[in-house]
Amino acid sequence: MKLFTWETAPNPRRVKIFLDEKGVKIPSEDVGVTGKPFLKTEFLENHGHRRVPLLRLDDGSYIAEAMAICRYFETLYPDPPLMGSDARQAGKIDMWERLAEWEGLQAISEFYRNSKGSFSGRALPGYAQTLEQIPELVERGEARLNLFYAKFDTQLAKHKYVAGKSFSVADITTLCTIDFASFSKLGIPGNCENLQRWYELVSKRPSVSG
Amino acid sequence: MKLFTWETAPNPRRVKIFLDEKGVKIPSEDVGVTGKPFLKTEFLENHGHRRVPLLRLDDGSYIAEAMAICRYFETLYPDPPLMGSDARQAGKIDMWERLAEWEGLQAISEFYRNSKGSFSGRALPGYAQTLEQIPELVERGEARLNLFYAKFDTQLAKHKYVAGKSFSVADITTLCTIDFASFSKLGIPGNCENLQRWYELVSKRPSVSG
Repeated sequence: MKLFTWETAPNPRRVKIFLDEKGVKIPSEDVGVTGKPFLKTEFLENHGHRRVPLLRLDDGSYIAEAMAICRYFETLYPDPPLMGSDARQAGKIDMWERLAEWEGLQAISEFYRNSKGSFSGRALPGYAQTLEQIPELVERGEARLNLFYAKFDTQLAKHKYVAGKSFSVADITTLCTIDFASFSKLGIPGNCENLQRWYELVSKRPSVSG
Repeated sequence: MKLFTWETAPNPRRVKIFLDEKGVKIPSEDVGVTGKPFLKTEFLENHGHRRVPLLRLDDGSYIAEAMAICRYFETLYPDPPLMGSDARQAGKIDMWERLAEWEGLQAISEFYRNSKGSFSGRALPGYAQTLEQIPELVERGEARLNLFYAKFDTQLAKHKYVAGKSFSVADITTLCTIDFASFSKLGIPGNCENLQRWYELVSKRPSVSG
């Protein structure tokens, strides 16, 4: 088994934090490159998926997508549960994880990939074809990110963690989204006090700070 | 418990097919409206989420997002398994379901919502704020959809179903994507014979044809 990763990028980081929370160690290779083509040429030539994280199983087949890789390890190692241990928890965690990804991580990703010159022709990850940047997505991404912050601040006024009483993958995706946004100087707005309280709490976890 | 739905739209249809496959019946209300604001005003006024499907639990709390609702019912009613019954299956199904959603359903949704005059100011679902259409996403959505078709045709040359030997949520999302694309005259290309064979197979299931 081998995990292809790029630990500073937000999607691979979701898996890194998840595995640390589980106490699971697996062989990994960091295939990230600063600047085009962003991933090592050898990795791109041998993996049509062209994105990380990517998990190669012992039978030679692959699991792609950060949350699918987490699902694999959650099923193998249910403790501590990070995707819920009953139907209600599982549904709520999946919901908030997907909201964090769609309303938060996708928003900041649109802002980032459409505004940086180094991503010209690569406005979406994983495509071998040229996909030109779309300037309108920069402003829209920032607008959506601010709505994400407001929604999650409201949720965290009522709950200790994003999906309720327990730390879960919903917290992991939310945290990786915020740290990625902070890198672009679009961190938590000053009026989101609940989100800031939660952020300081989860940032102290060894899986995050380590 | 109550499911708010709009059965002809692709995301609620994913849940409808899933529940039919499970043989689970729950009370539901169709809140769809043809033309703006697309969902009944009473539903929008009472549900900040502003999207369907949306499941209200007996404790008054909600689960949103099609796949999170499916996860809830998968955990309650594991048979027949539609999200995998071991780690490898669970990971592969989650991977292919997410690829179908991100590379397929999101692609045709971008094409659709950015090209139809009736969606002006509502380029993304669920936002109360005006989000203007972005014409570049029409062409990009169609280009991404064709790459999705090619990738899934290759996968289905090797496997009976999208994620392997068994029917799963990956098939459900793929099917709902294709039927939604066909509605915009962007159905399966003639050279995708494996995908067409699979499409004819799954379209015969009572959950799909009924």
